[in-house]
Amino acid sequence: MKSIHQKRSKKAGLSPGSLIHVGRKYTEKSKITLIRYNETFFVEKEVASIADLISEKSNEGIAWINIDGLDAKLIEDVGGIYGLHPLIQEDILNTDQRPKTEDFGNYIYIVLKNFYNQNNGSLPPEQVSIILGNNFILSFMETQTALFEPIRERLRKNKGRIRKAGADNLAHAIMDNVVDNYFFVLEELEERIEYLEDDLVKQTTPVNLQAIHSLKRELILLRKSLWPLREAISVLERSESALITESTHIYFKDIFDHVIAIIDTVETFRDMLSGMLDIYLSTISNRLNEVMKVLTIIATIFMPLTFIAGVYGMNFKYMPELELRLGYFGVLGFMLTIAILMLIYFKKKKWL
Amino acid sequence: MKSIHQKRSKKAGLSPGSLIHVGRKYTEKSKITLIRYNETFFVEKEVASIADLISEKSNEGIAWINIDGLDAKLIEDVGGIYGLHPLIQEDILNTDQRPKTEDFGNYIYIVLKNFYNQNNGSLPPEQVSIILGNNFILSFMETQTALFEPIRERLRKNKGRIRKAGADNLAHAIMDNVVDNYFFVLEELEERIEYLEDDLVKQTTPVNLQAIHSLKRELILLRKSLWPLREAISVLERSESALITESTHIYFKDIFDHVIAIIDTVETFRDMLSGMLDIYLSTISNRLNEVMKVLTIIATIFMPLTFIAGVYGMNFKYMPELELRLGYFGVLGFMLTIAILMLIYFKKKKWL
Amino acid sequence: MKSIHQKRSKKAGLSPGSLIHVGRKYTEKSKITLIRYNETFFVEKEVASIADLISEKSNEGIAWINIDGLDAKLIEDVGGIYGLHPLIQEDILNTDQRPKTEDFGNYIYIVLKNFYNQNNGSLPPEQVSIILGNNFILSFMETQTALFEPIRERLRKNKGRIRKAGADNLAHAIMDNVVDNYFFVLEELEERIEYLEDDLVKQTTPVNLQAIHSLKRELILLRKSLWPLREAISVLERSESALITESTHIYFKDIFDHVIAIIDTVETFRDMLSGMLDIYLSTISNRLNEVMKVLTIIATIFMPLTFIAGVYGMNFKYMPELELRLGYFGVLGFMLTIAILMLIYFKKKKWL
Amino acid sequence: MKSIHQKRSKKAGLSPGSLIHVGRKYTEKSKITLIRYNETFFVEKEVASIADLISEKSNEGIAWINIDGLDAKLIEDVGGIYGLHPLIQEDILNTDQRPKTEDFGNYIYIVLKNFYNQNNGSLPPEQVSIILGNNFILSFMETQTALFEPIRERLRKNKGRIRKAGADNLAHAIMDNVVDNYFFVLEELEERIEYLEDDLVKQTTPVNLQAIHSLKRELILLRKSLWPLREAISVLERSESALITESTHIYFKDIFDHVIAIIDTVETFRDMLSGMLDIYLSTISNRLNEVMKVLTIIATIFMPLTFIAGVYGMNFKYMPELELRLGYFGVLGFMLTIAILMLIYFKKKKWL
Amino acid sequence: MKSIHQKRSKKAGLSPGSLIHVGRKYTEKSKITLIRYNETFFVEKEVASIADLISEKSNEGIAWINIDGLDAKLIEDVGGIYGLHPLIQEDILNTDQRPKTEDFGNYIYIVLKNFYNQNNGSLPPEQVSIILGNNFILSFMETQTALFEPIRERLRKNKGRIRKAGADNLAHAIMDNVVDNYFFVLEELEERIEYLEDDLVKQTTPVNLQAIHSLKRELILLRKSLWPLREAISVLERSESALITESTHIYFKDIFDHVIAIIDTVETFRDMLSGMLDIYLSTISNRLNEVMKVLTIIATIFMPLTFIAGVYGMNFKYMPELELRLGYFGVLGFMLTIAILMLIYFKKKKWL
Repeated sequence: MKSIHQKRSKKAGLSPGSLIHVGRKYTEKSKITLIRYNETFFVEKEVASIADLISEKSNEGIAWINIDGLDAKLIEDVGGIYGLHPLIQEDILNTDQRPKTEDFGNYIYIVLKNFYNQNNGSLPPEQVSIILGNNFILSFMETQTALFEPIRERLRKNKGRIRKAGADNLAHAIMDNVVDNYFFVLEELEERIEYLEDDLVKQTTPVNLQAIHSLKRELILLRKSLWPLREAISVLERSESALITESTHIYFKDIFDHVIAIIDTVETFRDMLSGMLDIYLSTISNRLNEVMKVLTIIATIFMPLTFIAGVYGMNFKYMPELELRLGYFGVLGFMLTIAILMLIYFKKKKWL
Repeated sequence: MKSIHQKRSKKAGLSPGSLIHVGRKYTEKSKITLIRYNETFFVEKEVASIADLISEKSNEGIAWINIDGLDAKLIEDVGGIYGLHPLIQEDILNTDQRPKTEDFGNYIYIVLKNFYNQNNGSLPPEQVSIILGNNFILSFMETQTALFEPIRERLRKNKGRIRKAGADNLAHAIMDNVVDNYFFVLEELEERIEYLEDDLVKQTTPVNLQAIHSLKRELILLRKSLWPLREAISVLERSESALITESTHIYFKDIFDHVIAIIDTVETFRDMLSGMLDIYLSTISNRLNEVMKVLTIIATIFMPLTFIAGVYGMNFKYMPELELRLGYFGVLGFMLTIAILMLIYFKKKKWL
Repeated sequence: MKSIHQKRSKKAGLSPGSLIHVGRKYTEKSKITLIRYNETFFVEKEVASIADLISEKSNEGIAWINIDGLDAKLIEDVGGIYGLHPLIQEDILNTDQRPKTEDFGNYIYIVLKNFYNQNNGSLPPEQVSIILGNNFILSFMETQTALFEPIRERLRKNKGRIRKAGADNLAHAIMDNVVDNYFFVLEELEERIEYLEDDLVKQTTPVNLQAIHSLKRELILLRKSLWPLREAISVLERSESALITESTHIYFKDIFDHVIAIIDTVETFRDMLSGMLDIYLSTISNRLNEVMKVLTIIATIFMPLTFIAGVYGMNFKYMPELELRLGYFGVLGFMLTIAILMLIYFKKKKWL
Repeated sequence: MKSIHQKRSKKAGLSPGSLIHVGRKYTEKSKITLIRYNETFFVEKEVASIADLISEKSNEGIAWINIDGLDAKLIEDVGGIYGLHPLIQEDILNTDQRPKTEDFGNYIYIVLKNFYNQNNGSLPPEQVSIILGNNFILSFMETQTALFEPIRERLRKNKGRIRKAGADNLAHAIMDNVVDNYFFVLEELEERIEYLEDDLVKQTTPVNLQAIHSLKRELILLRKSLWPLREAISVLERSESALITESTHIYFKDIFDHVIAIIDTVETFRDMLSGMLDIYLSTISNRLNEVMKVLTIIATIFMPLTFIAGVYGMNFKYMPELELRLGYFGVLGFMLTIAILMLIYFKKKKWL
Repeated sequence: MKSIHQKRSKKAGLSPGSLIHVGRKYTEKSKITLIRYNETFFVEKEVASIADLISEKSNEGIAWINIDGLDAKLIEDVGGIYGLHPLIQEDILNTDQRPKTEDFGNYIYIVLKNFYNQNNGSLPPEQVSIILGNNFILSFMETQTALFEPIRERLRKNKGRIRKAGADNLAHAIMDNVVDNYFFVLEELEERIEYLEDDLVKQTTPVNLQAIHSLKRELILLRKSLWPLREAISVLERSESALITESTHIYFKDIFDHVIAIIDTVETFRDMLSGMLDIYLSTISNRLNEVMKVLTIIATIFMPLTFIAGVYGMNFKYMPELELRLGYFGVLGFMLTIAILMLIYFKKKKWL
C-alpha cells in the first residue's frame, strides 16, 4: 500500500517552493546526459557539472537534457538555468504528482507516470517530468532506466521524422514511449486475470479472493493515474502554445486515442473482476447448498431408521413383534423400504 | 478474452506511423475492388495492381475502392496515392481502434466495428475503416465478407437516391449497413436472454451463472464499442465539412438515432441481466432455506423420539414402566402424539 | 420481453427511407378522420380516399388529420401531400422510435409513447406520431383508440381556449393527453407496489421475488421512454420555430413539469423496489437463522440426553448404577436438569 | 406511501388550466389574512370577501396576502385580481408540485414544500406557493398553520431590516422560514438514526430492518424535494428580474447555502443508513455462524460418543469387552478422552 | 455523530444575519493577535480592545488580525470596523459552513475546515474563516491553536517571499497550511487501514466490521468537506478580483492540485474499504462453509454407524448374526470399512 500516498505531511508549514524530496529515496548519484541534434548533426554526452550545462545553453540545435535521479540541489540549479518556477522545481521533486500539463508561456511542464520497467516489472510507478522549451527538452527520471533508449536510438540513426522535427516532436516521442509502456502492464494484468478465471472454475479458495482484490487494487491505482493523464494529453492536443507546431497536434491526438483505449481496457478489466467476485460468492453459496444437501440426505435417511432400531431396542416386557420369527427381517425390510422411498423423494426434488 | 486487448506492446518504442499490423493475422491475399459510378454510368472491377489504381484516379464519377484484407505495404501505397496521413495508415492497420471520426480537411477518416458476420455469427468484431474524400470512398475490411453486397446491389440496380447523391451518401450507406448489423447481434442476445430467463425458473445451476456472466461480458464489449460509435456519428452529423452536403446530415441523424436505440437496448439488457443475477442468488438462498427446513423438521421429530426409545432401552434393574402390560403401546402412542404435535407446530410456522 | 426490441434487422441493407412496417402487425384497415375548425366553425368527418385528402388541403381553418393504423402505402401518400421527408415516413412506420422532436422548418415531427389504454390497461406502449404544420396537425396511431376522444369533445363543445388558439395548441393538447396517461400507469404501479409491500410483511415466497422483478422491469421500460420524452418536450419548450407561438411555450413548460414529476415518481418507485429486494433477502437470511436455531436447540438438548440413555443401554456386566434402586429415576432427574440448564442457556443467548 | 404520488390521473383529458384540487382534501374554510406595511406603518387584518381584496389593491405600502386553505373558486378570483396565469392557478391547487421558480415578468411564482409542522411533526409535507409581485406577496398554504407567525411578529415589532426592505425581502423571509424548518426534520431524523445505531449494537431484529427502510424512504422523499428546491433558489439567486433588488441576491445565496448544507446532511444520512444495512446483514451472517458452531460442536462431541455407547449396547453373544471387570469405566474414560480432545481441537480452531 | 449536523434549528424564524453562535461552545475568552509587516518591518502584538483595533486600522503595511474563539459581540464589532456584511458575520459564527469562497468586491470571504490538530488528533474539524482585504487579513478560529505558528515564524524570520508579497500571498500561506494538515489525517487513516487489513487476514470479528464502518464514516465526513474545498479554491484560482495578484494564481493552482491529490487518495481509501468489506463478508461465508463441512463429515460418518449399532441392539428373539462367533468383530470391521469409504469420498470431494 506504500505507493498510494507518500509522506507529504513533513512539508506542512513550509513555504511553497521549498525543495524537499518527497517520495522514495535513492542512493545513486544523479546523472545528466545531453543530446544535441538537428537534421544534420547529433551529439550525445554526459554532463559532469552545472557549469558545463550553462556553457552548453547557447549552442545551436535542439538540446535534450535528461536527468536520472532526483537531487534537490541539482534541480534548483537546473531550474535556475532554464528559469523554472520554484513550484515546478518542487513538483519535480515530489514524486506523488498526478499526471498534468501546465503551460508557463515560455515552457510547458508535463508530468507522467511510467508503470512498466523492463528490468523489474510493473511496480511501483516512476514519475517522469518533462519540460518542453523553445529548443530544448528537460526530462527528469527517478532512477536510471533504459526507458528512453529506443528514442535515443532513433535519434542516433536519424530514423523517421524525429531529427527533422522540433522539440515538441521529441516531447511527443517521450510521452508516446511512456504511454506505450501501459500496454505491457495491461498484458501482464490480462494474463493474471485469465489465469484467475481458469482457476475459479476449478476451485474457490480464499487465495482466489485475495487475488481478485489485489488485481482490483492495482486497477484502482492504474486508473487513478490514467484519468489525469487523459486530461494532461488533451490539454496538449488542444494547446495553442507557440511551442507546439500545428502538425504535431495530430500526434498528441494519437497518444490521446491510445490513452482512451487503455482506459477502456482498464474499465473492462474492472467489470470482469467484479463479475468474478460475483461468481466467487455465488460459488461459495452453491457449495454450501451442496454440503447441506448431503447432510440433510444422510440425516433424513438415517434418523428415522435409527429411531426404528431404537424402538426395537427397548426393554419392555410385552413387545409382541420381538417374538415373531421373521420380526427381525421384517423390520430390516421395512427400513430398506423407507430408505428407498427417501432416495426416490430426493431424486424427485433433484437433490441427487 | 482475446478480443479485449491486442498485443499492441510490440509497437512500444517505434516511431509513430510505423506500419505494423496489430491484430489478427489473415493468410488470404488482400483484394481490391473498384466501383465507379454516377447517375448515368456504373463500372465494377477488381484492381490487380497499384499502378492500375493510380491510372484510375483521374477518371470521372464517384469511385469506391474497397480493400478486403489488411496488408501494410498495400495500405502504404494506397495511402500514398490518396495522401493519407501516416497515422491514419497506422490506425487502419491496428484493428483495436475505437470507433471514431477524424476530419483532415480534404478527407474524413471513419472507423467502425462490424459485430455481425452473416457467415459465422457475431464474434469477433471486425474493423471497418472508411475514408470519405471529395469524390471517392476508400473502405478497408479485415477479411473478405459479403457485408457490402446489398449496397453494391443497390448501386448496380440504381435503386433509391444512391447513384444520384455524392460520396457522402455512399459513406452513409456503408455506415448504415454496419449499424444495422448490430440489430442482428441484439436479436441473438435477446434470444439467449429469453432462453436463460425461462431456464432460471426451472433450475439454478452453476451453468446458468456462467451463462449470465458470459452474456454480461459480451454486453460490456458491445457497449465499449457503442459509446464511441455514438460520438463518431454525432461528429459527422454536426460536421461543417464541405465533404458532407447539407441534405445528408439528416441521414447521419437517422443513424445516430439507431445507435441511441441500440445503446438503450443494451442498457436494458444489462439491467435485465443484473435482475437475473439477483434472482439466481436469492433462489439459491431460498433453496438453502428449503433444505434446512427439511433437515430441521426431520431432526426435530426424530431426535426426541429416538431419545425416548433410548430411555426405555436402558438396562436399569428397576424401571417400573417396563413391567406394564401396555407400556410398549403406551410409549408408541406417546411418540405418535409428539410427532403429530410437532407437525402441527411446523404447519403453523408455515414450514410445511 | 417482446416489447424491448423489435425485429428491425430485416431492414438491414435496405436504402434508408424504405417504408417497411417494423413493429406489431394489425389486421384492421387504417382509418383517417379529419377535423377542421377555427373559432367560429367546426367540421368532423371520416376521409375515405387520398383524393379527398388532397382536395381538403387548401381549405381554411386548422385541420387535424388523425390516422389510426399504420399502412406503408397510406403514409407514403399522406407524406407526399404534406411534403414529409422519407426518413420521417420511415420513422412513423417503425414503432420502436424513442420519443423525440425534430424540427424540419416548415413542420415539426414529434414522437411519443402512449403507455395506457383505457380498454386493455398499460401494456404494450403505442407509438403516437405528430406532425405539427403551419395550420394542420397530422397524428398517427398504431390502432384505433379512444385516446383523443376528450380532445375532440373539447373541440366540438368549444371548451376553453382550444378553438381560439392555433395548431401548436392542438399539438399541446394531444401531448398533454398522452403525458397525463402516464399518471394512470403510475397509479396502477403504485397499487401493485403497495400490495407487494403488504404481502412482504406476511411472507417471502419466490412469487414475491418474481413480482419485484417484473415491477422492476416495467419501471426500466417506462424510464427508457421517459428520459427521451423529457428531452423531446424540452426541445419544444425552448424551440424558436415560427410554428410555436410565444404564449404556447408556457404550456409546453407545464407538460415538461409533469414529465419531471413522473420521472421523480418512477425513480422513487425504483428506490422503493430495491429497498424491498433488500428486505426480501434479509428476511430469507433471518428465517434461515430462525430455522437453524430451532435445529440447534433441539440437537443440543437431545444429543446429550440420548447419549446418556445410550450409556445406560450398554451391556457391560459390571455397571454399578444399574443395580441402584433409584438409578432410573436419578438418571431421569439428571437428564431433566441438563435440559433445563440448556433452556436457560438458550434463553440467555436470546435464542428463545 | 400516500404522499409519493397523488391521484392526478383524474385530470387526464381536461384542458390545461382546469382548476381541480389535486391533493389532500380539507374541510376547513379558506382564510385570507392581509398585512400591509412600510417602514412607517403596519396594518394586519382578516379579509372577508373578494370585494374587500379588490378595494385593498390600490393602497400604498407592501401588501402580504396569505391564504390558508386551497379553494378552487377563491384561487380563481384572487388569480383574476392579480393577473395570475391559469396554469399558475392550477399549480397552486395541485399540491404535488416540485419546488420551482417561474418568472412571469410582472410576478415570480415560487413553490416550496414545508416538511415540518410545529403541531404534528414532520409528515406529510405541505405545499407553500408564493407570488412575488411588484409591491405585494401572495402566499398560499394548504392548512392554517403557525408557520409564518415569527415573520408576522418581526413585521409587527419592526425588527431588523424587514420593514425597510421591499417585497422581495419578505419573500426571502418566508422562504428562509420554510428552509429553516428542514433543520427540525434533520434533527428528528438524526435522533432516530442515533437510536437505531445504538439499538443495532444490542440486537438485530426485523424491527431494525423495518426502521432502516422507513428512514431510507423518508430520506428519499426528502431528497426528492431538496434537489428541485436547490434549483428553484438558484434561479432566484441568479435572477435578473426587476422584482429582486441587487442587495437581496446575497440573501438568496444564503438560503442556497443552507439548502446545500441540508442536501449534504441528507446524503450523509443515506451513506450512514446503507452502512447500517451492511452491519445488519453481516451481523445476521455472523450470528448464523455462531449458531452453526454450537450445533457442530455439540454434534461432533456427542455423535461419536453415542456411537460408542451404541456399540456396547449391541446384543452379540461374543463381545469380550463386556465381560471385563473395568470395561464400563474404561469406556467411560475413553469417551471422556475423546470429548476433551474434541474440545481442545475446537479451542485451537477458535470456535470456542 | 455529533459532528454531522449542528443544532441550527434554534435559528429558525430569526431574521437573517442574527448573530447566534451555532456550534460547539467554548469557555475560553476570545483572543485577538495582530501582526503588521512589510518587507522592511514586522510588528506582532496582542490586541486588548476594539478601540485599539480601530486605531490600528489606518497604519501602513499588511495587517493580519487573527481571532481565536468565536464571540458574537466581538465579531459584530470587528465586522463593523472592516465593513463585513451581516450574513458573513453570521457565517463566521455558524461553524457548520461548508468550505466556500465569496467575493464581495472589496474583500473575499473564505471558509475552510481544519481536520488536524497537533494536540488532540484529527477530530472534530475546526472552522477557519479568512477575510482577504486590500492590505489586511482577518482570520477567525474556533479555539486557540498552534496551527498558524509556522506562518508567524516565517514572517518573523522573513523567510521566502512571504514578506515581500501582498495580503493575497498571506491568505495563500494560511490556506496552504490548512490543506497540508489533511495529509496528516490521510496518514493516520492509512495506518488504521493498513492495520485493519493485516488484522482481517488473521480474523474476522464484529470488531473488524465496526472498524471498517467507522473508517467509512470518517471518509464520508472528510469527503463532504473536500469537494466544496476543491470548488472554493478553484474559485480563487480563476478569480479576477483585484485583491489577487497575477503571480499568486499559480500558488492557488498549487493548493488546488494538492486538494485533488487528497480527494484521489480519499477515493482510493473508499475503494479499499469496500474491498475489505467484501473480503470480510466472503470470509464469513467461507467460514460457515468450513463449519458446515465439519458437521456434515461427522454426521455422515457416525449416523450410519450408529444406525448399524442400533440394529444389533434390537431385542428380536431371532437375529441369526448375534449368535455368530465373529459377529461382533465382523460388524466392527464393516463399520470401519464404511467410515474409511466415507473419508475417501470426502477426500475426493476436497472437503478434507
